[in-house]
Amino acid sequence: MSKSIFYHAGCPVCVSAEHDILDLLGANSVDIVNIGENKSRIEEAEQAGVKSVPALLTPNGNVLHINFGASITDVKG
Amino acid sequence: MSKSIFYHAGCPVCVSAEHDILDLLGANSVDIVNIGENKSRIEEAEQAGVKSVPALLTPNGNVLHINFGASITDVKG
Repeated sequence: MSKSIFYHAGCPVCVSAEHDILDLLGANSVDIVNIGENKSRIEEAEQAGVKSVPALLTPNGNVLHINFGASITDVKG
Repeated sequence: MSKSIFYHAGCPVCVSAEHDILDLLGANSVDIVNIGENKSRIEEAEQAGVKSVPALLTPNGNVLHINFGASITDVKG
């Protein structure tokens, strides 16, 4: 895995953070996944250690939880 | 302001996040400030909108709060 993955759920905090992350890392360095729309990716996110969104999964497998927009449990509902 | 500033307080969560941020952004793109050791920078951090550490102040002035290590109030004490 050489790219980071930015998980979000379309909330205002998520969109703001997404713009910042894309500016900082560059669009080619990060995949964007909306787990609010793409619920099939929720399990993958949880297994990677994502506990809330927005969150950035780094290439070395660490999860940086950014702000606190929505718990992953809320996105499932 | 062209660099990001990473504010932290030396806590384990902060150190882990610092390594990730340096890997992702590159050491030349980010200044690291330990407000636990350098308390004169706390007011600057608060005025920038930092509410907890670790946090990344982006070049465009947004603050990304990463995880939740310690509230800025605790660092002052």
